[in-house]
Amino acid sequence: MNEMSPSSRRGGGREAKRAARLAGSGVSAPFISRRLPYVELLDEEGLSLIEENAEQILSEIGCEFRDDPEALEIWRAAGAEVTGELVRMPRGMCRQLIQDHAPKEFTHQARNPARSTTIGGKRTVFAPTAGPPFVRCLDKGRRYGTIEDFNNFAKLTQASPWLHSSSTAMCEPVDLPVNKRHFDMFLGNAVHTDKPFFSAVSQPSRTEDCIEMAQILFGDRFVDPLTGENATCLMGVMNGNSPLTYDATMLGAAKALARANQGVLVTPFIMAGAMAPTGLAGAIAVTLAEAMAGMAFLQLVKPGAPVIFGSFVTTLSMQSGAPTYGTPECSLIINALLALARRLGVPSRSGGSLCASKIADAQAAYESAQTLQTTALGGASFVLQSAGWLEGGLVTGYEKFMMDCDQLGMMHILLNGYDLSENGQAMGAIREVGPGKHFFGCAHTQANFENAFYRSPLADYASWEQWDSEGAKDIQVRANAAWKKTLAEHEDPALDPGVREELEAYIKRRKGQMPDANY
Amino acid sequence: MNEMSPSSRRGGGREAKRAARLAGSGVSAPFISRRLPYVELLDEEGLSLIEENAEQILSEIGCEFRDDPEALEIWRAAGAEVTGELVRMPRGMCRQLIQDHAPKEFTHQARNPARSTTIGGKRTVFAPTAGPPFVRCLDKGRRYGTIEDFNNFAKLTQASPWLHSSSTAMCEPVDLPVNKRHFDMFLGNAVHTDKPFFSAVSQPSRTEDCIEMAQILFGDRFVDPLTGENATCLMGVMNGNSPLTYDATMLGAAKALARANQGVLVTPFIMAGAMAPTGLAGAIAVTLAEAMAGMAFLQLVKPGAPVIFGSFVTTLSMQSGAPTYGTPECSLIINALLALARRLGVPSRSGGSLCASKIADAQAAYESAQTLQTTALGGASFVLQSAGWLEGGLVTGYEKFMMDCDQLGMMHILLNGYDLSENGQAMGAIREVGPGKHFFGCAHTQANFENAFYRSPLADYASWEQWDSEGAKDIQVRANAAWKKTLAEHEDPALDPGVREELEAYIKRRKGQMPDANY
Repeated sequence: MNEMSPSSRRGGGREAKRAARLAGSGVSAPFISRRLPYVELLDEEGLSLIEENAEQILSEIGCEFRDDPEALEIWRAAGAEVTGELVRMPRGMCRQLIQDHAPKEFTHQARNPARSTTIGGKRTVFAPTAGPPFVRCLDKGRRYGTIEDFNNFAKLTQASPWLHSSSTAMCEPVDLPVNKRHFDMFLGNAVHTDKPFFSAVSQPSRTEDCIEMAQILFGDRFVDPLTGENATCLMGVMNGNSPLTYDATMLGAAKALARANQGVLVTPFIMAGAMAPTGLAGAIAVTLAEAMAGMAFLQLVKPGAPVIFGSFVTTLSMQSGAPTYGTPECSLIINALLALARRLGVPSRSGGSLCASKIADAQAAYESAQTLQTTALGGASFVLQSAGWLEGGLVTGYEKFMMDCDQLGMMHILLNGYDLSENGQAMGAIREVGPGKHFFGCAHTQANFENAFYRSPLADYASWEQWDSEGAKDIQVRANAAWKKTLAEHEDPALDPGVREELEAYIKRRKGQMPDANY
Repeated sequence: MNEMSPSSRRGGGREAKRAARLAGSGVSAPFISRRLPYVELLDEEGLSLIEENAEQILSEIGCEFRDDPEALEIWRAAGAEVTGELVRMPRGMCRQLIQDHAPKEFTHQARNPARSTTIGGKRTVFAPTAGPPFVRCLDKGRRYGTIEDFNNFAKLTQASPWLHSSSTAMCEPVDLPVNKRHFDMFLGNAVHTDKPFFSAVSQPSRTEDCIEMAQILFGDRFVDPLTGENATCLMGVMNGNSPLTYDATMLGAAKALARANQGVLVTPFIMAGAMAPTGLAGAIAVTLAEAMAGMAFLQLVKPGAPVIFGSFVTTLSMQSGAPTYGTPECSLIINALLALARRLGVPSRSGGSLCASKIADAQAAYESAQTLQTTALGGASFVLQSAGWLEGGLVTGYEKFMMDCDQLGMMHILLNGYDLSENGQAMGAIREVGPGKHFFGCAHTQANFENAFYRSPLADYASWEQWDSEGAKDIQVRANAAWKKTLAEHEDPALDPGVREELEAYIKRRKGQMPDANY
């Protein structure tokens, strides 16, 4: 692909060389190293105004930390004003804590080191859906997700060159008891992929289980021999109970991750009109305030803990109260939040391939494309929910997963920007061909034939006659064939049998200590 | 809608007031007055390099003007080097001609003056498809377009608040003889819409017929009483036989338009890999060169003639040779060309809702959304092909038309940017609601309920259960109902009966002078 072209004028540097090396070894680029400038839609004046409003929100209104006396004590000791569970942070306090301690970028380790991702700076990492209880495919329609579905999505994640990371729960394996399924999900990610993945965050104890399993999976690599510090092998999401509230479950899991130097995506859940005002500048300010409170808190728990300024953005249908995706208001909110994260100096997470549609029809695609292009142009560091999302996150769709991966491939090319080398300028070819003739046969085209343009595996470009005679297939039908072929061809990436045995033994032992329970 | 909000901090100015007035009178805003900054993906160095290459192309390689001795004579007299039909323009000549004479912006008159559009500057005008010989709807599938279809699309264009202009041939009325159908198309646009529309350009004589009909339709308004100059009541496309070639048909029609002070969209047809190199910087340079040659030529024909720097951009499937749309390479080319038009100081045309898909499925939507967002963010002045496009422009789809209009509505909100007024900041609401509570019932939300967010008429946001119980409809099914309802409710905008009689009499007389012919 273009981003590995050795002839590009701007192609130098360590990461480009690494990408080229990986290309040769059959491993795709482990993340995008952006060459395109960031697209920023809100100007300095607007961004400053919102930063000022966020400080006002934190110092005057405050943020609640519920059912977690330790959190309140930590804030009090740091100098915040604590009243009941409400914490008011003096102006500038949160920003200072983040800027003093939070890393600007960090590495999320994969069990295959060539697939470890760097998060922050000019990089973008794509990861699939996390959380849907349902799955959908053309053959069986909509149904609860199972561990088989989970493992299928782990395999599809491994196969896509455009997904750099796995997530926690590409779907929830609803056939397994709630209190034990995190073991099976960890194992599925560890066995079927060699890409980085996530910890469970549904309960602090499950997060701790995941950290123990990561120690087994990563072995010596779990601790950095130079610093004695843990490597960041897992990440987890800390959602706010927005607006301006964190609860004990999320705080407990996030503290466990931070103390073990694992990554936390601090993610306010913003449905403008419900958890935030309808005024976009207000929705952005309240998100910034809530995210800063969460990230600053984790820096108090463990200075230097890797955190990501996350946001999950929807608008509200004012008629039905339902969340809406791919709207222009979502695009404006997402773009501004990504710029604010850069100004704060931390990696960002927002957007994805979000949609409200129940099926992978044109509504789903319009919504997902608007969200994804906004996300990519705006420069998100980490993009969770970038493949498979349907129905506002209630469903992971098999066909949608394949379509989204195709779009992610296109984003790789877009973010690679313009090739201004001699080859990209192609003045020789323009001279050779001259007016009124075709470039198809010229030497330049022949030389660039293989890698000239992104090749979609799903889009149909045949004539109508050919397409019609082959069954007039909607793209969903082609995507259906594609995921089945991918699963049929899947082979697990090599994993030390001793490590796998140890993981399985750990899981067997831990499960044996617990009753089956759906909580 | 947001863009008419009187409370916006940046809402002042003449155009905003005009928009507010129109809103009150039931007429939608006649065009978008952009508040969002332009998104430019290529930097100064890259843009300058391409401008330099374009000058090199024009001065060394040249541009052909075929079968038009007058054109060659015009170039010779102006100081270009003419060899056979090849014209080489000295460095800087074309740019200078354009900058000295071509208007930076101009008004495209509508028969309803409130709907006249201003083209250029920070404005964007959306117009539907132009040219497809086929139409498609869910009920009848794919078939040749008829004059009934043409008139239907004129009515749908009139009804959409998000289309500012009509085009020439929303579909070709293939049931009418080629040499006469321009009369019926002009009449359909004149009767069923009161928005601006286009001239036929298939033969110079047909363009002259359209200019005569415009004189009847616009009456006194056809000549500006202050300047004695014709008003710009029509526009037409001059496509290149790319690369770097114009033919006599296109030149003849464009000369007729320019001499009558009507607008010309000078539009190289760029299929990178066929009519341009695969190297994007080369494809952009050859497009710039060809467009400059065409626009400069028209300034020699009639200094001050309104021209638009157009481009029609596709990439090539290197496997099948078919054109591809919505690709990242198309986005990069479109964005750079829009920036180059601004540097040249003329209005721009590119993009639209382009796609290769045969049907309005997810492929069509992904492709169209990528193209449209690129077009809108990049700042195209005029967007032809912004509603209805399917199958690479061979088909206008009824359902696709409605879906695209919905997306155009969203682009209106996006380009309106951020409301940084007190109301947009909503600090009072954030204080009132406080942590952990909902904004749904607060005073600010109630006050902004009506216009808070764009309301899609086609997207489904209901629960899965409700959607499923109502028939599990794909968005195409909803769009099918929407266009039928719109047509059923259509009423032609008032037109002076005397003008209509005069138009019909002119058409009857002219048709009577011609045989039926399919050329």
